[in-house]
Amino acid sequence: MKRLPAIFFLFGLLLTFFPAKAQSIHFREDSAFIKKIYDHTLTQSQCYAWLKHLCKKIGHRLAGSPQAAAAVNYMQQLMESLPFDTVWLQPVMVPHWVRGEEEIVRIVSSYEGSGFELRATSLGNSIGTGPEGLRAEVVEVHSLEEIEQLGQAQIRGKIVFFARPFDQTEYYTFRAYGKAVDQRVWGPSKAAEYGAAAVLVRSMTNATDEVPHTGTLHYVENQARIPALAISTLDADKLSYLLKKGKVEIYIRNHCRMLKEQLSYNVVGEIRGSEKPEEIILTGGHLDSWDLGEGAHDDGAGCVQSIQALVSLKNLGYRPKRTLRCVLFMNEENGLAGGKEYWRVSNEKGEYHMAAIESDRGAFTPRGFTVDGHPSIFEQKYAKLLDWQPLLKIWRLDFSKGGSGADISGLKDQKGLLFGYEPDSQRYFDYHHTERDVFEAVNKRELELGAAAMTALVYLLDKYGLD
Amino acid sequence: MKRLPAIFFLFGLLLTFFPAKAQSIHFREDSAFIKKIYDHTLTQSQCYAWLKHLCKKIGHRLAGSPQAAAAVNYMQQLMESLPFDTVWLQPVMVPHWVRGEEEIVRIVSSYEGSGFELRATSLGNSIGTGPEGLRAEVVEVHSLEEIEQLGQAQIRGKIVFFARPFDQTEYYTFRAYGKAVDQRVWGPSKAAEYGAAAVLVRSMTNATDEVPHTGTLHYVENQARIPALAISTLDADKLSYLLKKGKVEIYIRNHCRMLKEQLSYNVVGEIRGSEKPEEIILTGGHLDSWDLGEGAHDDGAGCVQSIQALVSLKNLGYRPKRTLRCVLFMNEENGLAGGKEYWRVSNEKGEYHMAAIESDRGAFTPRGFTVDGHPSIFEQKYAKLLDWQPLLKIWRLDFSKGGSGADISGLKDQKGLLFGYEPDSQRYFDYHHTERDVFEAVNKRELELGAAAMTALVYLLDKYGLD
Repeated sequence: MKRLPAIFFLFGLLLTFFPAKAQSIHFREDSAFIKKIYDHTLTQSQCYAWLKHLCKKIGHRLAGSPQAAAAVNYMQQLMESLPFDTVWLQPVMVPHWVRGEEEIVRIVSSYEGSGFELRATSLGNSIGTGPEGLRAEVVEVHSLEEIEQLGQAQIRGKIVFFARPFDQTEYYTFRAYGKAVDQRVWGPSKAAEYGAAAVLVRSMTNATDEVPHTGTLHYVENQARIPALAISTLDADKLSYLLKKGKVEIYIRNHCRMLKEQLSYNVVGEIRGSEKPEEIILTGGHLDSWDLGEGAHDDGAGCVQSIQALVSLKNLGYRPKRTLRCVLFMNEENGLAGGKEYWRVSNEKGEYHMAAIESDRGAFTPRGFTVDGHPSIFEQKYAKLLDWQPLLKIWRLDFSKGGSGADISGLKDQKGLLFGYEPDSQRYFDYHHTERDVFEAVNKRELELGAAAMTALVYLLDKYGLD
Repeated sequence: MKRLPAIFFLFGLLLTFFPAKAQSIHFREDSAFIKKIYDHTLTQSQCYAWLKHLCKKIGHRLAGSPQAAAAVNYMQQLMESLPFDTVWLQPVMVPHWVRGEEEIVRIVSSYEGSGFELRATSLGNSIGTGPEGLRAEVVEVHSLEEIEQLGQAQIRGKIVFFARPFDQTEYYTFRAYGKAVDQRVWGPSKAAEYGAAAVLVRSMTNATDEVPHTGTLHYVENQARIPALAISTLDADKLSYLLKKGKVEIYIRNHCRMLKEQLSYNVVGEIRGSEKPEEIILTGGHLDSWDLGEGAHDDGAGCVQSIQALVSLKNLGYRPKRTLRCVLFMNEENGLAGGKEYWRVSNEKGEYHMAAIESDRGAFTPRGFTVDGHPSIFEQKYAKLLDWQPLLKIWRLDFSKGGSGADISGLKDQKGLLFGYEPDSQRYFDYHHTERDVFEAVNKRELELGAAAMTALVYLLDKYGLD
């Protein structure tokens, strides 16, 4: 037998090692189109202007508030002015919590005397103290378990102060948040179980500063409800110091109330697919925000990026095979009613979300996407993404395994992939749930780069699918 | 022949593919130590406090200014209080440019009338107009070549306005800067060559805002010197608009002067190597800053990170084999006298900088290091770094080929590797050379993560060398 030239052997070897890659993307064509996406977004996009309107003309927008209704209205009108095929409102009943005018946390007796005000903000869903307020001794704890250990004898009638700080050694600040936030979410009911009068929580942040951070608490069913507030980290340090010196008594007064449920809406815009309209690719963020600041990073940014991603593709003349749907969810912050209603209706209709991308981690420089999915399909579909890595590496984006986002998490049973857009996390908890989360805290390019990253992923998902 | 068990074959295969990796790093030991570096830096480091002192107690510190002298003094005392073996000052003569009190750029005749003030800042090294100021018609250009095309007929006696903006489609903002900054550096002399009276330059930034950006200009020898100022990007847009409508006359007055040279210093701290003291690993930034803001990102941050990197290693009980040297250079901004003197003396002494790491791109979240070196050794030594990639990937750091930094660039002939610490670049030109570059613009964790990244690299360089 005549020997084949060495080049054939090499070719065979290449086919053995790289068949998937060679067939699965068109690198030159795709990298050129993704460059177009970035150029377009960095020079022609409108998302920064939309965010400015949302933050400056409407402002913060807790579910049930008049501003939330205004935000629904604005976003519906905006999307109707953009190249979506259809725009609709999906009705959903939401809680309507109000903070009230006044929030006082005052040291009335301590080693250093009395009269210091601590910078505080009521936790979302908290009850108020009533007009007289309440006064009690403070007991500091560092975990829910410590409440159980101390027992009724030391908890009853006290103000429980949850003081466990963020673990600064966690590179990903969301992990530090995840390790501390049980105090805020479950602390009030746990303290009430042992007879506490009220709860103070160290603010959920990496920063040491004057700014208190609100956020949701969950009252456990059939448990007494007690008022709960967050205090700034500087004041938490001060309180810990005073407690080391001796007994501290604090006076608290706030006026939070849960009013009756309101009708509100998820805002949805859709571009119908030309070949596989039954396969849905969703982009989304949440339209509600806490009632401090302007909800700029959390999550006005995610909303305008989610709109921009689909609009950019249309503006670039891309004709999607699949159905692209942008969903702005209502009530993520204190109930998730919008997300739950969306899943319920979608599952009832037998829809298939081939992919969903949530942006709800701020508008910082993109680092990539975390990816989640039903165990029965996850590894197989995730492997497909790795073929796209070289295209995204150019823009310094990575895929990694991890949670997606609260508002899309309930779509997992549809067995598509769920993506969490991942910006840099270092500054996020400087702003999260505070008066500092305003439009000026968002950098235009960082916002746009996030929108471009999402657009690029939608493009690849639509073009190649996940099968 | 008896067949060897398959396991031997596999083992042989592994040796074939991974011998370099297996021998070149101790992954488990090194990753554990680098984790310690990060934990230490994020919880015990002092660099943020040092930066606060530099910015708030001393402030901006242009070469030759009293504040620059105070900064030299502070840094010397600081380093003497830290575990350096020796600390010394390296004398260097530096220029002493002063801005003067008043800077006026006023539209005195235009389509929209007169009397508008443009927000302006004199370029570093610029001469002043003298007390009478000057008034002239404006001509807008977009490149140095356009000056040549227009020629004396259209340039003589005019104020030349360089209006080419940043290319927003450049992902790396330093590339956009590199493509625009010739207007600021060489524009004044090029305009003077054709008889211009003065120069205005659109500020070097991605942002569209009210803030003018200073920065150095170079007057070409034997060319007339004319005053030059930067105007804010919003005012540059306004001026372009007015010039489209008709003739614009502007009045300029400023009082800049170059005073006589001053004696100043590079501040140097050294930890002597235990095994190969003749091999130097340098960390450095520049201690001078522009005379606006507080020189926080540019480059107080680089200075304190450079100190922290070496101090952290000592604090962690690491005993360096090689000599670790921290250099805070003087006069990077408007002359590079400190850098040049350092190279001159180092080359004269026959020193060998095995590696030098400069931090002068702001205190944002780390992305990696750019690497440069003499062509005769570069590829070989760069290849060595790739063995360390898996260790740095954990902290989301990459190596890439590219320039290092102005202050260390002259060490290239010593044939070590030159590194530029690379933080995220998206926000850098929001602050660069402006009143906004203050301590508050620096995030504590981002600063610390940069210090930790530099520490990790110094550790690997010292432990394994580059041969």
